[in-house]
Amino acid sequence: MEEQFISHPFQPMKVAIVGVGLISGSFALGLRYYGFANHVIGVSRTAASSQKAVELGIIDEAMTLEAAVDAADFIYVAIPVDATIPTMITILNRLKPHQWVADAGSTKQALCEAVDSHPMRHRFVATHPMWGTEYSGPEAAVKNAFRGRACVICEKEKSDSDIVSSIEHIYQTLGMNMIYMDAPAHDMHAAYISHISHITSFALANTVLEKEKEEDTIFDLAGGGFESTVRLAKSSPAMWAPIFMQNRENVLDVLNEHITQLRKFKACLEKENLDYLLELMNHANTIKRILK
Amino acid sequence: MEEQFISHPFQPMKVAIVGVGLISGSFALGLRYYGFANHVIGVSRTAASSQKAVELGIIDEAMTLEAAVDAADFIYVAIPVDATIPTMITILNRLKPHQWVADAGSTKQALCEAVDSHPMRHRFVATHPMWGTEYSGPEAAVKNAFRGRACVICEKEKSDSDIVSSIEHIYQTLGMNMIYMDAPAHDMHAAYISHISHITSFALANTVLEKEKEEDTIFDLAGGGFESTVRLAKSSPAMWAPIFMQNRENVLDVLNEHITQLRKFKACLEKENLDYLLELMNHANTIKRILK
Repeated sequence: MEEQFISHPFQPMKVAIVGVGLISGSFALGLRYYGFANHVIGVSRTAASSQKAVELGIIDEAMTLEAAVDAADFIYVAIPVDATIPTMITILNRLKPHQWVADAGSTKQALCEAVDSHPMRHRFVATHPMWGTEYSGPEAAVKNAFRGRACVICEKEKSDSDIVSSIEHIYQTLGMNMIYMDAPAHDMHAAYISHISHITSFALANTVLEKEKEEDTIFDLAGGGFESTVRLAKSSPAMWAPIFMQNRENVLDVLNEHITQLRKFKACLEKENLDYLLELMNHANTIKRILK
Repeated sequence: MEEQFISHPFQPMKVAIVGVGLISGSFALGLRYYGFANHVIGVSRTAASSQKAVELGIIDEAMTLEAAVDAADFIYVAIPVDATIPTMITILNRLKPHQWVADAGSTKQALCEAVDSHPMRHRFVATHPMWGTEYSGPEAAVKNAFRGRACVICEKEKSDSDIVSSIEHIYQTLGMNMIYMDAPAHDMHAAYISHISHITSFALANTVLEKEKEEDTIFDLAGGGFESTVRLAKSSPAMWAPIFMQNRENVLDVLNEHITQLRKFKACLEKENLDYLLELMNHANTIKRILK
């Protein structure tokens, strides 16, 4: 693949990506493109993913987790959030002082709590690059992912400053805007701004599949509106179910609110209350001034 | 504006568009581009819209409804569906036998019933081009709208065959795929595939506005997923509230189903039932095979 070594005060690293999919693959493509990585090792549960990732130029070789950790300068973990916790502990148990690790998970509190008292906690940075698509696997990885999106770092103060600087420099080079939060705040905001969108999209797909028995009609009539609201329902259950489960209190809180809001629309229709319906919709319109 | 007179067996018409907005404006641009119209009259409630539409080359002049009907060969109505009914009756009352009219409304049953016994019913074609964006007004009109989308014609048998052929030819030239339904079937399918997406998006915007008091955080963190699910919440309440109200039985039916589906997600989280959560999400994933 095309390489571009831009000038930055960074020694190219030997990088291991744990998980060989959309996020880790896109991240690895970016690392290589900007000269942060001179060798990328992939750790995957399946030989098929590893092989695909080698073919796509995302990784140079596949290894077991243990061998990859021993060989790498920097380890980047992007696997389902329930698997992240034991994997991160395995990595930290094996980590030597010059090495470091970051994760890309969509929940942060459970992970941060799980590693909080680990003697190598200071060599770990908890990050959440808020980018994704509904596709998964190494073939979904793209160059120029992440650009223009936010990346949250949690508990920055618990990570050594050299590795915080490194990951900030990497994400910023990839075009991300850094945001700092504590882990509980991250999980709450992520529930409001990302997780509920996924829940509603999954539920909307099931709604339409339940009501619209003529699947040809969905195919024929579906316009841009349907596609955009239901797009996230194509997302990976293996990736998203653990996110909802790990962040269940926040997700339940916003899901209850969402059901309440839908009930207001229902009441307007049942009572034929056009004025209140318009009021609800005009209020929703104010989202215009907030979105970019 | 650029004109392109392609060869088709069609005498260029004097066209009146009633409503000067996203749909009618895009339609008029298409009519002119493909040589279907040599003169476009706009009918708008506001002088500002008419003036903007003249400036944008969408219409040549503005007139009152009555004057426009008297002057036009073909009248195209794209205004809120509650206003469409009395407007259509006014038009039909005034229509001479060589003239004809079509509408573009997102609901069809109430309109078709309202004009059913009108002596000029046969000069009207009930259509629903299933295209739109979250924007409104003449400045939202775009050339090359409609392409690749479905257009439903209802009660085709109640319209004279010459005008059915004409509107089919126009929509097909604009790139639409024609679909034929009776009006109640249209409204039911539209509720499932379009109207519920808009309700959920409006409700999701209100959910997030209610929970996320830090609006800067929405701005900072909102990624592609949030934007795509909440995009439709920017849609015009004046256009959409009457659609929901006129199609309330179908919309309530699918809205109840949607609340039921959301409750299943809620139950999974409350009971920490990962297996059922995965089952729901895997089922939602099957929408992949239906969407284009």
